[in-house]
Amino acid sequence: MIKAAIFGASGYTGQELTRLLLGHPAVELTAITSRRYAGVPVTDVFPAYYGLTKLKYLNAKPSEIAGLCDVVFLALPHGVSMAIAPEFIAAGKKVIDLSADYRLRDIVTYEKWYAKHVSPELIKEAVYGIPELYRNKIKGASLIANPGCYPTSIILALAPALQSKLVDVKTIIADSASGVSGAGRDPQIGSLFCEVDGGFKAYKVGKHRHTPEIEQELNSLAGTSFPVTFTPHLLPVKRGILSTIYATLQQDIGTAELCRVYSQFYAREKFVRVCPEGVFPNISSVCGSNCCDIAATVDTRTKRLIVVSAIDNLVKGAAGQAVQNMNIVCGLEEHAGLKTAPLYP
Amino acid sequence: MIKAAIFGASGYTGQELTRLLLGHPAVELTAITSRRYAGVPVTDVFPAYYGLTKLKYLNAKPSEIAGLCDVVFLALPHGVSMAIAPEFIAAGKKVIDLSADYRLRDIVTYEKWYAKHVSPELIKEAVYGIPELYRNKIKGASLIANPGCYPTSIILALAPALQSKLVDVKTIIADSASGVSGAGRDPQIGSLFCEVDGGFKAYKVGKHRHTPEIEQELNSLAGTSFPVTFTPHLLPVKRGILSTIYATLQQDIGTAELCRVYSQFYAREKFVRVCPEGVFPNISSVCGSNCCDIAATVDTRTKRLIVVSAIDNLVKGAAGQAVQNMNIVCGLEEHAGLKTAPLYP
Amino acid sequence: MIKAAIFGASGYTGQELTRLLLGHPAVELTAITSRRYAGVPVTDVFPAYYGLTKLKYLNAKPSEIAGLCDVVFLALPHGVSMAIAPEFIAAGKKVIDLSADYRLRDIVTYEKWYAKHVSPELIKEAVYGIPELYRNKIKGASLIANPGCYPTSIILALAPALQSKLVDVKTIIADSASGVSGAGRDPQIGSLFCEVDGGFKAYKVGKHRHTPEIEQELNSLAGTSFPVTFTPHLLPVKRGILSTIYATLQQDIGTAELCRVYSQFYAREKFVRVCPEGVFPNISSVCGSNCCDIAATVDTRTKRLIVVSAIDNLVKGAAGQAVQNMNIVCGLEEHAGLKTAPLYP
Amino acid sequence: MIKAAIFGASGYTGQELTRLLLGHPAVELTAITSRRYAGVPVTDVFPAYYGLTKLKYLNAKPSEIAGLCDVVFLALPHGVSMAIAPEFIAAGKKVIDLSADYRLRDIVTYEKWYAKHVSPELIKEAVYGIPELYRNKIKGASLIANPGCYPTSIILALAPALQSKLVDVKTIIADSASGVSGAGRDPQIGSLFCEVDGGFKAYKVGKHRHTPEIEQELNSLAGTSFPVTFTPHLLPVKRGILSTIYATLQQDIGTAELCRVYSQFYAREKFVRVCPEGVFPNISSVCGSNCCDIAATVDTRTKRLIVVSAIDNLVKGAAGQAVQNMNIVCGLEEHAGLKTAPLYP
Repeated sequence: MIKAAIFGASGYTGQELTRLLLGHPAVELTAITSRRYAGVPVTDVFPAYYGLTKLKYLNAKPSEIAGLCDVVFLALPHGVSMAIAPEFIAAGKKVIDLSADYRLRDIVTYEKWYAKHVSPELIKEAVYGIPELYRNKIKGASLIANPGCYPTSIILALAPALQSKLVDVKTIIADSASGVSGAGRDPQIGSLFCEVDGGFKAYKVGKHRHTPEIEQELNSLAGTSFPVTFTPHLLPVKRGILSTIYATLQQDIGTAELCRVYSQFYAREKFVRVCPEGVFPNISSVCGSNCCDIAATVDTRTKRLIVVSAIDNLVKGAAGQAVQNMNIVCGLEEHAGLKTAPLYP
Repeated sequence: MIKAAIFGASGYTGQELTRLLLGHPAVELTAITSRRYAGVPVTDVFPAYYGLTKLKYLNAKPSEIAGLCDVVFLALPHGVSMAIAPEFIAAGKKVIDLSADYRLRDIVTYEKWYAKHVSPELIKEAVYGIPELYRNKIKGASLIANPGCYPTSIILALAPALQSKLVDVKTIIADSASGVSGAGRDPQIGSLFCEVDGGFKAYKVGKHRHTPEIEQELNSLAGTSFPVTFTPHLLPVKRGILSTIYATLQQDIGTAELCRVYSQFYAREKFVRVCPEGVFPNISSVCGSNCCDIAATVDTRTKRLIVVSAIDNLVKGAAGQAVQNMNIVCGLEEHAGLKTAPLYP
Repeated sequence: MIKAAIFGASGYTGQELTRLLLGHPAVELTAITSRRYAGVPVTDVFPAYYGLTKLKYLNAKPSEIAGLCDVVFLALPHGVSMAIAPEFIAAGKKVIDLSADYRLRDIVTYEKWYAKHVSPELIKEAVYGIPELYRNKIKGASLIANPGCYPTSIILALAPALQSKLVDVKTIIADSASGVSGAGRDPQIGSLFCEVDGGFKAYKVGKHRHTPEIEQELNSLAGTSFPVTFTPHLLPVKRGILSTIYATLQQDIGTAELCRVYSQFYAREKFVRVCPEGVFPNISSVCGSNCCDIAATVDTRTKRLIVVSAIDNLVKGAAGQAVQNMNIVCGLEEHAGLKTAPLYP
Repeated sequence: MIKAAIFGASGYTGQELTRLLLGHPAVELTAITSRRYAGVPVTDVFPAYYGLTKLKYLNAKPSEIAGLCDVVFLALPHGVSMAIAPEFIAAGKKVIDLSADYRLRDIVTYEKWYAKHVSPELIKEAVYGIPELYRNKIKGASLIANPGCYPTSIILALAPALQSKLVDVKTIIADSASGVSGAGRDPQIGSLFCEVDGGFKAYKVGKHRHTPEIEQELNSLAGTSFPVTFTPHLLPVKRGILSTIYATLQQDIGTAELCRVYSQFYAREKFVRVCPEGVFPNISSVCGSNCCDIAATVDTRTKRLIVVSAIDNLVKGAAGQAVQNMNIVCGLEEHAGLKTAPLYP
């Protein structure tokens, strides 16, 4: 059994990691930390797990946690992971970092969008953790930069088109919408039920921190440099991200052929489900699961590619992808602990 | 008092017209029809209005209804209005048609997207009913083609930019999301609570019937011909449409100047509220009201215009705009009966 | 025009008062206070009202506000009103207090459930503000103790049965459920969208502060003393309270006769709508309105009375009833500013 | 591997059975029937399961299905199972019936509330399938009458109190609320998103068909005959039932002792979780799981027992309990296929 620990386990991502690891056949969850809830049983904070675990949150130092695990998940805010990851790496542990701290390869870009980096030397070691694209690199890694939720949905949606050079990359527009769990469990007015229910809005227009991450990855897949228009929206749901992406085609291709390109690209990927022609994904069909559903179509009237992808922001957008990365890094079956069907309705 | 009647009053648009007209200080609602609920009191179907009206739905012929009103609202499905409107016009009544039957000026386009037209001779008489743009034409009209909900949100959002020729019209992309009342009150699986709640999806991608209407109006405002990419989505809310529209700028303009262009364009319009720079609209802030909130910004990194607009699909997207048109056509104060504040939260 | 002010205007109740007073034909809203948002325009905090008001929140002392109004609404937390009301009373203003500070006539009870009372001398002056029951007392009052939301729904539901001595009062059980706006706009984990959506739970079982208020009023209506079982629940909606109340009948009465008792009791009340036999209320049918819908039935198999009532917790449960009380106290038409139809769907 | 089939698999209960059986380690789902979707792949109707199954709905006769399975689940409407079950029983198959057809032992009662029974001879063979109470009877059964959702939540909540004779059974009142999936997937106006969202209402007050089933079981546990007041409500959620049950105590017992009674009663039951004193269940904490969370408290002021229970209506209220029964009947580990943690948030 692999021993796993979660640092910063009391937010929604942390509790999702807890849920997945408690159900993982080859992993023993040995320690979870939270300063806010130090000493408190998990089931006091998340009664859903009553009877499934007796764990209590610890307020422990990295060195103490390192002694209890083989792999550690850092579910801390941006700017905090960077101070802690080095200790675990030095202790020879595998680290899956769910913050943005090691995602951006260019430190200037990171510091422009986030904060001063305190362990930039680890950036080049970190592997950007999208298994469907970087499986081999992940295998040999010790430090995984688990991707952001919006970026995951957009990168998986565009990878086939970029690899086949189907589109003029300068025309890419990503219009995304996410459920509220993406904002975290901190009490803030904007996340209150009465502020969200029945509402829908764009936010951080042209300013979202995921923008450089999206650009880094799309630029890498396309082999050229370009900016991307990315607009996030807040959906009145708990979980889910739908991204609708537009790009002008630079090849003459019809929807049927486009679907074949997508199906072939993801033919062996168990977690990416390419929809049949004419069928479009719904976030409700991936709820609670590590799947990413993608539909691609050609808008013949405007010669544009339109791709729609759906993920659960807490699973494939965070904790599920982290467990998938852990499976690869630890030499386990890649789908272990991630086989549960989505919960519908 | 103006006498008004509603033909086809038992769907969500019809009941919204009922609500607005019952509260209109200068209008007497004299007759409402519904074949399905003929003889049934409105309050049996919509208990919300108990105590506010004693009206019963009638199953009446146009000629009978014409005798009871000065102005009639046709809240019938597409393809049905066109058979009925001529009778009311011939009887000298003002007709506000909420279907698509008279919106498209080109009959070939109408018949391609909808059905065979049985009264095409009325198309040239019909005035497309967006008061903020066509107030003078509406004044003298007898037949108003009340615009579609999605088109209203997109046209109002782009009009200032098109008038000032700020964008390359070939790059326009309209990404919209609507609440479920837009789908009507017909029992269908796709509108069931369990199929909608917690979900979000794109539908009719590249195929939505509002596409030709959006193109007709944007082409007219721009003075040139071009297709538009329009993608609707289904939101897990009852009311509201948010449209996020993208277009590449062809002028060098910053956000502050852009906001000035928008504010000036709508300076005298009571129902269009241009958001302060940096503030973006939420459908929850226009719930139940005839307002359209618009925010415009420049994505400097990609030199794109991003405009976001929010309306209530049943009010400014249908019944409210219809009442606004009626006010103009009947020589009443334009805002009469439409002054109620949005309902928040 | 009556001049009105709102003290503590930035919570949901305060903004609902703002909405209602802005639309009141005989009232001028002259001042609204909020320490948290001092100097901030209302429309910055509640963009829904953009274009409807230019008011800014003030951080003002009672004496300053008293100079600006004839009637003041105190929308402050419990324990705060009691320190402020005396100043307004002394200045000769009418005071509508939306807290619990003057609702309980017995100071021992108040201090057991709430806090030490600092102006108990005003308690005997205060009139408990349910117009349908205490209209004449309200007319002559200077200080109105606006009732709690749950109590309003339960008292109106039981008044006819208690007046006709239909039930054994010792068997009364009130099972209620409220939307989240009742918890206020303070950021707390329990009010977060992700903690509420899709959920439903009982809370403060046997402990809710509204219990003594419910008992005081039901005891008064029944003319005898008895405790009541009251269980609140949290509904995943923004607005609305549904109360389902049970009591064993002590008279032989059928549902038809029971409905007649209820209809007669409320025959002249415009805001209380007694449902036809067999029809039961839904909170969605009173959304945004000052109505209270009530249905009463006899469960013949168990000889119990079951009464169900629906109100909007922010309107008839707080701000709407406060405005209704103000209308009476200020000699205005009782329904002024409260005539808007509910918003459905 | 046990071979299982589902008759009538295309409603919400049927698809939930499909989800659970597809994930069951010791069961092979061999056939699923649906007349409406005959020949259609499951994944066309429920895209959530794409990649998890290649099954298609069959329109098959019982005899054909009997040849394909060891155990069959009947997820058909009331009145239909009764015509089909006998064939499977005669063929030596285990039958888990999710309808009400075999739940009521008294045929007169069944026919009064439902319809004429066509296979009443099987009633005495059928075992009412609540494992926590009737495990030993279920072991030897061939025909399981899977309980109704509301009854399951109420029976489990009251069993400990009834066994210990803590309450005056004549005072029992069960106030329940259920998510909309309980109404099924048939398109009907009352289940439309716009009719449900933001709403809450009581329905079938004093008339719900689950009443005789609740009474049969509570009477059996109490060893005496009495009617029960049961009021269902419709919650604006997809899944979940919360029951709040009241009964006057006939013993002097405090909350701490009451919690001990409940904890002991369910000490060995993995699926029933008794909440710590002062903690109350939320339907969101059992979402997607076979758990039933129960809290019991004494309302000392009125000497009443108040018990609150939460289940997922599709899982412990239907499909999950059916699989649990199947496990027992087929000699499998009772918790097999039911170990997944609830999905939270």
